[in-house]
Amino acid sequence: MDANIVLLPGDGIGPEIVVQGKRVLEAIAAKFGHSFTISEHPIGGNAIDDFGDPLPQPTIDACKASQAILLGAVGGPKWDDPTAKTRPEVGLLKIRQELGLFANLRPIQTWDELVDASPIRREIVAGTDILFFRELTGGIYFGDSGRRPHASGEEAYNEMVYSTGEVERVVRLAAKAAQTRRGKLTSVDKANVLEVSRLWRQVADRVVKEEFPDLEYEVVLVDAMAMHLISRPKDFDVVVTGNMFGDILTDAASMLPGSLGLLPSASLGSDGPGLYEPIHGSAPDIAGQNIANPLATILATAMLLRHSLGLEDEAKAIEDVVAATLKAGHRTKDIAGGGAFVSTTEMGDIVVNQLG
Amino acid sequence: MDANIVLLPGDGIGPEIVVQGKRVLEAIAAKFGHSFTISEHPIGGNAIDDFGDPLPQPTIDACKASQAILLGAVGGPKWDDPTAKTRPEVGLLKIRQELGLFANLRPIQTWDELVDASPIRREIVAGTDILFFRELTGGIYFGDSGRRPHASGEEAYNEMVYSTGEVERVVRLAAKAAQTRRGKLTSVDKANVLEVSRLWRQVADRVVKEEFPDLEYEVVLVDAMAMHLISRPKDFDVVVTGNMFGDILTDAASMLPGSLGLLPSASLGSDGPGLYEPIHGSAPDIAGQNIANPLATILATAMLLRHSLGLEDEAKAIEDVVAATLKAGHRTKDIAGGGAFVSTTEMGDIVVNQLG
Ligand SMILES: CC(C)[C@H](C(=O)O)[C@@H](O)C(=O)O
Ligand SMILES: CC(C)[C@H](C(=O)O)[C@@H](O)C(=O)O
Repeated sequence: MDANIVLLPGDGIGPEIVVQGKRVLEAIAAKFGHSFTISEHPIGGNAIDDFGDPLPQPTIDACKASQAILLGAVGGPKWDDPTAKTRPEVGLLKIRQELGLFANLRPIQTWDELVDASPIRREIVAGTDILFFRELTGGIYFGDSGRRPHASGEEAYNEMVYSTGEVERVVRLAAKAAQTRRGKLTSVDKANVLEVSRLWRQVADRVVKEEFPDLEYEVVLVDAMAMHLISRPKDFDVVVTGNMFGDILTDAASMLPGSLGLLPSASLGSDGPGLYEPIHGSAPDIAGQNIANPLATILATAMLLRHSLGLEDEAKAIEDVVAATLKAGHRTKDIAGGGAFVSTTEMGDIVVNQLG
Repeated sequence: MDANIVLLPGDGIGPEIVVQGKRVLEAIAAKFGHSFTISEHPIGGNAIDDFGDPLPQPTIDACKASQAILLGAVGGPKWDDPTAKTRPEVGLLKIRQELGLFANLRPIQTWDELVDASPIRREIVAGTDILFFRELTGGIYFGDSGRRPHASGEEAYNEMVYSTGEVERVVRLAAKAAQTRRGKLTSVDKANVLEVSRLWRQVADRVVKEEFPDLEYEVVLVDAMAMHLISRPKDFDVVVTGNMFGDILTDAASMLPGSLGLLPSASLGSDGPGLYEPIHGSAPDIAGQNIANPLATILATAMLLRHSLGLEDEAKAIEDVVAATLKAGHRTKDIAGGGAFVSTTEMGDIVVNQLG
């Protein structure tokens, strides 16, 4: 197949890990006879430096003309000034909005070889396999906001909003995914306090009842979910929730496997390109040292092939190679537990060679 | 001293555990020569059944006329119908508002004897000692809310709001507490996305800089905090945050000690009575079986004596007895790890006898 793929390396370790993702995509193209046209564009802090804009218009245009996007990470202390005119994260929020990426998929699974690095005890965490669907273009992230005078100084506000349609589409995607997995769907809200959550629950209940009656379905309050993720993570299959709750819960869940460097994510819209990225940040402290773990980015390329290009075999090939790589004992510094480790590029070599 | 204390037993196991708290208060009064006038009032589901109101006006009046309130827990499946006219939690939210209880204090500490019941590995969690300050009468819990028409059906909204004054007073309380502890204060927000959080951070930064320059002070994003609580809980001393974030983070943190049955909380206003309660729920499944753990409620009475009555020695006496009780191996069912256990009343006896 022919496909147009955009790389957005970003800041910090972004460029180092995205280049390993690119090599993997090229290896897959060669092995399976595809033709990927790959181009690179600026986003984040470096784009602020060069163009005064964390998401320059040419980057948006290139993304819109592509089938899929691989992002590294954005941000760093250099652009952290809260009084600055713009910040790297603005680029991230804007690209989600511009491309209508309403569903953020975050698979959380443990790797048996690495599970003893988890803060959670093995008996509780080993075998965890959760797929989160976080709504990504609505809720309090994009509602009305501002400041107004107040007797004590001022008052700031942000409006959390969800519409029927916004809830329907992300719940539907999550429910469909649950059908292909263990058939269980958990919707997380705060319906005992928030009107928004009451609408969310009402719509989720209806969509599941009418369209997915065979799923095992439950609703859980966000505070209880924060507890369950720690005390019984294996009980969950697909979890769907709003933007803010999803931000917090998926980050909490990312601690479970004990290896942040292995977790990819996908952000999807109803059509148009998907955006794929490792969930870890730009790690400016180790940038340029060739020690970052490229495996999350490489696993993100597998998600890209699966979800945006429909190339399941190719995705599986990458995931199998990563699993074999870990089984064989290859480790980057972050997952070496103080033992011997390979560099970023060496880890890329190991994966690419097995795909050759 | 003379003091007027209100008991709100509530639903489920509430009455069973509050009566043990009452016995402890009576034992303290006898031992230290105080005179506590103790009265009981309805709240929650039983108040809905009897008075059609989860917080009847006479209960509010009694609370306002008291120095301190000990609450059991509210709620249960009987009152869970989402279409019901009112619900037990409404009583909880209303009493916080009526009494101006803007600061919810939740100490999270591990007990060495019980730490192996924690889902977190001992090396990571043992020695954790965090005091949360959750803002309790503002934020998205009490902002404007409603529904409006939308092309796809309807749209629901909740407004998150904080004013300068609301942030100042809770940060100040938290900072004062940090001065009496290990001198570290962490303020949690989502300032990279929310205007409300940018105001929160601005005010917190100013209050700490001007009034508490000696504190070690840091700001952490809520998603990062959800990770840190799991991966490095020992790094925190006092943590202050808004209502919604506090709800999620304190519940996550409640998993750390491995024994929900031992965690008390206090809700304080600027003057007037404080409200004290165990953080666990009404546990309707075990109500009436005399197996609930009364220790969280008993530890809540210690907080009551300390914060509302200024009786530090008395508070300490209770806490010492609870520590000695655990050290001596007495366990209720929830913390017995499958071994032998004592009943709710027996645990009350054990504590009261040591105070005798
Ligand atoms: C950087 C920030 C705006 C972003 C978010 O909150 O969505 C990040 O935390 C994430 O989860 O991708
Ligand atoms: C019952 C509910 C309204 C309440 C809250 O969210 O504040 C509870 O979760 C709590 O933390 O006390």
